Amino acid sequence: MSYKKITAEDIAYFKSIGGIHAVHTDEDALTNCASDETEDLHYLPEVVIEPLTVEAISRVMAYCNEHHITVTPRGAGTGLSGGALPVYGGVVLHMKRFNKILQVDKRNLQVTVEPGVITQELQEHVKQQGLFYPPDPASKGSCFIGGNVSENSGGPRAVKYGVVKDYVLNLEMVLPDGNIIWTGANVLKNATGYNLTQLVVGSEGTLGIITKIVLRLIPAVKHDLLMLVPFRNAVQACEAVNSIFLTGYTPSALEFMERDALEWSMRYTKATGIDLPEDIQAHLLIEVDGNNPDELYKDMDAIGNIVQQFDIDEILFADSHEQKQMLWTLRRKVGEAVKTNSIYKEEDTVVPRAELPELLGIIKSLGKKYGFQSVCYGHAGDGNLHVNIVKGDMSDEDWNNKLTHGIRQLFTEVVRLGGTISGEHGIGLVQKGYMDIAFNPVQLGLMKQIKQVFDPRNILNPGKIFAG
Amino acid sequence: MSYKKITAEDIAYFKSIGGIHAVHTDEDALTNCASDETEDLHYLPEVVIEPLTVEAISRVMAYCNEHHITVTPRGAGTGLSGGALPVYGGVVLHMKRFNKILQVDKRNLQVTVEPGVITQELQEHVKQQGLFYPPDPASKGSCFIGGNVSENSGGPRAVKYGVVKDYVLNLEMVLPDGNIIWTGANVLKNATGYNLTQLVVGSEGTLGIITKIVLRLIPAVKHDLLMLVPFRNAVQACEAVNSIFLTGYTPSALEFMERDALEWSMRYTKATGIDLPEDIQAHLLIEVDGNNPDELYKDMDAIGNIVQQFDIDEILFADSHEQKQMLWTLRRKVGEAVKTNSIYKEEDTVVPRAELPELLGIIKSLGKKYGFQSVCYGHAGDGNLHVNIVKGDMSDEDWNNKLTHGIRQLFTEVVRLGGTISGEHGIGLVQKGYMDIAFNPVQLGLMKQIKQVFDPRNILNPGKIFAG
Repeated sequence: MSYKKITAEDIAYFKSIGGIHAVHTDEDALTNCASDETEDLHYLPEVVIEPLTVEAISRVMAYCNEHHITVTPRGAGTGLSGGALPVYGGVVLHMKRFNKILQVDKRNLQVTVEPGVITQELQEHVKQQGLFYPPDPASKGSCFIGGNVSENSGGPRAVKYGVVKDYVLNLEMVLPDGNIIWTGANVLKNATGYNLTQLVVGSEGTLGIITKIVLRLIPAVKHDLLMLVPFRNAVQACEAVNSIFLTGYTPSALEFMERDALEWSMRYTKATGIDLPEDIQAHLLIEVDGNNPDELYKDMDAIGNIVQQFDIDEILFADSHEQKQMLWTLRRKVGEAVKTNSIYKEEDTVVPRAELPELLGIIKSLGKKYGFQSVCYGHAGDGNLHVNIVKGDMSDEDWNNKLTHGIRQLFTEVVRLGGTISGEHGIGLVQKGYMDIAFNPVQLGLMKQIKQVFDPRNILNPGKIFAG
Repeated sequence: MSYKKITAEDIAYFKSIGGIHAVHTDEDALTNCASDETEDLHYLPEVVIEPLTVEAISRVMAYCNEHHITVTPRGAGTGLSGGALPVYGGVVLHMKRFNKILQVDKRNLQVTVEPGVITQELQEHVKQQGLFYPPDPASKGSCFIGGNVSENSGGPRAVKYGVVKDYVLNLEMVLPDGNIIWTGANVLKNATGYNLTQLVVGSEGTLGIITKIVLRLIPAVKHDLLMLVPFRNAVQACEAVNSIFLTGYTPSALEFMERDALEWSMRYTKATGIDLPEDIQAHLLIEVDGNNPDELYKDMDAIGNIVQQFDIDEILFADSHEQKQMLWTLRRKVGEAVKTNSIYKEEDTVVPRAELPELLGIIKSLGKKYGFQSVCYGHAGDGNLHVNIVKGDMSDEDWNNKLTHGIRQLFTEVVRLGGTISGEHGIGLVQKGYMDIAFNPVQLGLMKQIKQVFDPRNILNPGKIFAG
């Protein structure tokens, strides 16, 4: 694909538009938008624009559409599939100034928010009013809600409360041609035309620029209990996950961590107070929440009894707010810890929950076959396992070529198990070469044509989701 | 639009395809597929085909696509917006032989089902295995799950458990060109390409023929309690709905019935045992469910205290299974009762829940202005109010012309309140003339182009959703 390069005239036009905070062309600003949290990728944009108003975005889009200049929307840059990388240069539209919580509609349990609000700040803001927005990706302290919507993020609580798509009621967005639309209505039920809202959620910034988000909220939950269960056998830990559900319990989080994941995170966060005996292969971090503490203790006891049927060491019950925080920090920092430990690739496999033990076995045997070491962790309650493949002492040749075959085989097995290649990180740049495993040409053809409906000149975040 | 009329040669071709139970051209069969439960509409198809296999459907579609013959998929014919009516004649594809529950995957809490299974039979089947599929439209005893998916149906329990879209994980469908695809994967989280599954849910049989449905299930709930609360003021009944939620309770059903709705249904079902004092304007039917009976009694008491703050008569607590059944039958039969009582039009308004009292006031004042009587009832907990406009002694002229203006004004107000024109019945044939109130030409343009992506020759269920 070839796009118009940005000239001084284009820059002058962008600067002439009202409602823009800044038009950056300095190296620092461009470099800051060249990467996200995905591996070590680096693509320089030609200009970074920080819009303040939806009308300004509309004018930028209309201009870029007319002149065939690419536009890549960017949030906090915490993405793990390269969705925010401007692979063809052009404009990065940085949404950080769209950072207002516009309205908490307490009467209707809804909030209208701009995309540049940090997810945790949104959660804390509505919590002060007795309300709860559950989706909580590991990066919740820094990621933007707009990025969460674009990637259909999940997080630990998805197992009980669902993912981002289950909370988005309506979106305001700017189309590539500059038109501004709402995708739906602010209602809990909607059978009025095609569901544009759900089409845009998870579309990774390829269909339009999201400018306002209406989310449904639920009443705040008052209490939670947390425990860490050490397993001597990692496959058994996966099996225990399903036993818990089949007995009728739905924890508010059910996280799996292989030994290395926890160990590296302990080292990275300098955590103390957790024993890690040598014979422990994996842990489950299990949370229950609700409004009745007595019921929660009963549930926790019952879940404790279920996991006791497996080969486990002593369960750690978090007995203070601080200890809960420490355990959650350990879990949330696994990704960063792995990253600092080695060059790595992160896969975001998801399968029907009961297939997790088989998936874990497959990953380990592929590792032997292709010579890679893997650290697995993730949202076991959803069947969503993050597979961190660490380079270790693998040769560059093997890392860049042979490994691709291993990942293809992994994804092929995932699809065979009824799963798919991304649960919550998106396809973006780094997984698009594997889309043919999840979808055949007919399915991909429909998706590409939908892209064309929204973005006929393919100026919006090109080079993502679809290979070639 | 003009389509090829079906000839003896076409019929011979359809009869030559394997995997088809019957190709009907007799008057009875055609007449049976000329209507659904929507008003008094009547459109004769030219042929009714009952396929047995997905391959047969694929061949029918490919042939009709090539020859420009329209195909209208049909389930149980319980639709309320005319979605199954073959307005341009052609083929009706009757899905009644796709009536198998293919697999209950108890390990993964999923079921794979064909579209022609009756919703209640599906619910009872999975319940026997300790599982729960919550969406329960009023017609659950006769409607097909495929129709529910096509219309994104709701029902009373949506208020706690969500609508059909919240349970559909994956769909097998035949495209108009005969290609057979799956829309997604059998997983709880999915960030892999555009969400074709959610695009197809609620698309009213205009994008493809659904042939298999994978639904997520939840563990069965053991207990429920039900009460009927009589209000002397209908607007107060709507206000009470929001008070219940704002106090932190989420009933498993929260249904509103105006006095006439209950009275007509009592007469229609010959119910006895319910007092209906003259000063009662409306009722709320409130259900709570869960696994701990003590907690449920506490919740019911608390909700009872909330509604006591309004001007109510004595609450009826259902104290037996039979009494619960009787109350639910009364609620479910309101639609039929209204239908036997007078010629009517049913509107399916939905607004943010807290706007219900205002909506009810608007409906009544529009009734005065345009000279219509209305009977309102529905899923107040979702903000979804069914407005039955009864013809009564209105002149045909007023009914056919003046009333349209009244409905336009009603929908305009609904949209102004943040709502939309259909919550669960769909747009189909009878509401398409009002789509311009909910969406502007840009939004409608996107939807129409999406239709074109799936169905470039516009052979599949044409004349629905979009006017002109």
